[in-house]
Amino acid sequence: MPTYRMTIEYDGAAFCGWQVQPGEPSVQEALEDALATALRVPVTVVGSGRTDSGVHARRQVAHFQVDHPIDTYRTLASLNGILPDSTAVRKLKEAPDGFHARYDARVRRYHYYVTTGFRALDRHVRWRVRPEPDFNRMNAAARALVGEHDFDTFCRTQSDTEQRVCTLHMARWVPESDEGDWRFEITGNRFLHGMVRAVVGTLLEIGHDKRPPDDIPRLLAARDRREAGPAVPAFGLVLEDVLYDDDV
Amino acid sequence: MPTYRMTIEYDGAAFCGWQVQPGEPSVQEALEDALATALRVPVTVVGSGRTDSGVHARRQVAHFQVDHPIDTYRTLASLNGILPDSTAVRKLKEAPDGFHARYDARVRRYHYYVTTGFRALDRHVRWRVRPEPDFNRMNAAARALVGEHDFDTFCRTQSDTEQRVCTLHMARWVPESDEGDWRFEITGNRFLHGMVRAVVGTLLEIGHDKRPPDDIPRLLAARDRREAGPAVPAFGLVLEDVLYDDDV
Repeated sequence: MPTYRMTIEYDGAAFCGWQVQPGEPSVQEALEDALATALRVPVTVVGSGRTDSGVHARRQVAHFQVDHPIDTYRTLASLNGILPDSTAVRKLKEAPDGFHARYDARVRRYHYYVTTGFRALDRHVRWRVRPEPDFNRMNAAARALVGEHDFDTFCRTQSDTEQRVCTLHMARWVPESDEGDWRFEITGNRFLHGMVRAVVGTLLEIGHDKRPPDDIPRLLAARDRREAGPAVPAFGLVLEDVLYDDDV
Repeated sequence: MPTYRMTIEYDGAAFCGWQVQPGEPSVQEALEDALATALRVPVTVVGSGRTDSGVHARRQVAHFQVDHPIDTYRTLASLNGILPDSTAVRKLKEAPDGFHARYDARVRRYHYYVTTGFRALDRHVRWRVRPEPDFNRMNAAARALVGEHDFDTFCRTQSDTEQRVCTLHMARWVPESDEGDWRFEITGNRFLHGMVRAVVGTLLEIGHDKRPPDDIPRLLAARDRREAGPAVPAFGLVLEDVLYDDDV
């Protein structure tokens, strides 16, 4: 069966999250409904991973299969005509046989956007942080996250069986202006439920001197969510990219 | 009387424009109301210039005068607590005696944001342009706008007396990604009513080969709004900066 790969952008404020939930508007359901309308057959959409309620995506990746080849150019236009404004399919192309958006994903990249100033235009994707945290201190602390670790302490859901080991390739704060706009860039092979937001909340406590700068190794070893800081709000978080073997 | 200078960001979708209009929500009125509440005296706010209904600003500049010196740090926090989310005062500082936001402004900088792709997150500030225009052709044409010209052809309002000469320092299209996101950057000493949006609409007609690439000099000479292209929508336009003698 022909397999197709989509790159999807969405405004998380409009959805209960990626995954279908009865009675709630999910991105997956919006895409499946739009595809069913465009292609006149029921379609199941498989994403690279779930995003939580309120979390945005710039380039989420998903695949679907259909019985017969489709005209990708026309289907792309149809889908964007059918989907609500909060969702756009950026790209649609045929994928190699057996391509799987979740199992084949190698690297996920998230950004968390903050400002220490007062902003209006990007208020839906940038969280206001007061007082000004020490970004150098947070960057030094973030280095301890990079590598292969058990991230149980930063996972929102409890489980005795699920594997909690992730490999992070990068975790750093980058200034975006000289007026207090920063983003936290984090990339890894996989992320646990609520992990990025718990990491950012914990780093901010370090930046606000409420926690020692070398606390990360201790937190990773603790394997207890209560030891980490509070999660920051979902609306500052964007799934920026998902990379596959072809891309890396 | 002490004079203060504010740098203001706003989401144009929330307003009828900068200027006070009875029964309509204007940025100027929102600021005057917030200042009156914060300072407990009536205050008149003078902007660097008007922005039309729907046009955004990242760093609009305005001044106001009060009888007694104010605590700028506390007033800044109060104002942002009082103002709606759609408006933020980015900076507030005392200005030199006699500072005037409109008369002293030397350079205004606008960006118009477009995409030839499908987007969701910045849909409120980026206009979708289809089909793909020829940006090289538009850039070549835009060069004829730079310098001192009578821009009557690109002005929305008719007047026999008002001076229509503006000096443009720059007018160019800049790519923002390799996925079809571009912005038009234009800077000048002053801009007429609806001028940037008429310029962008005319350049897009050139980019779509509906108009010869060397049409700009003829249009400037015509001094007739009907000769120019249609204005593009307000929501893609952002007043990015206003520069004063101290800044240039």
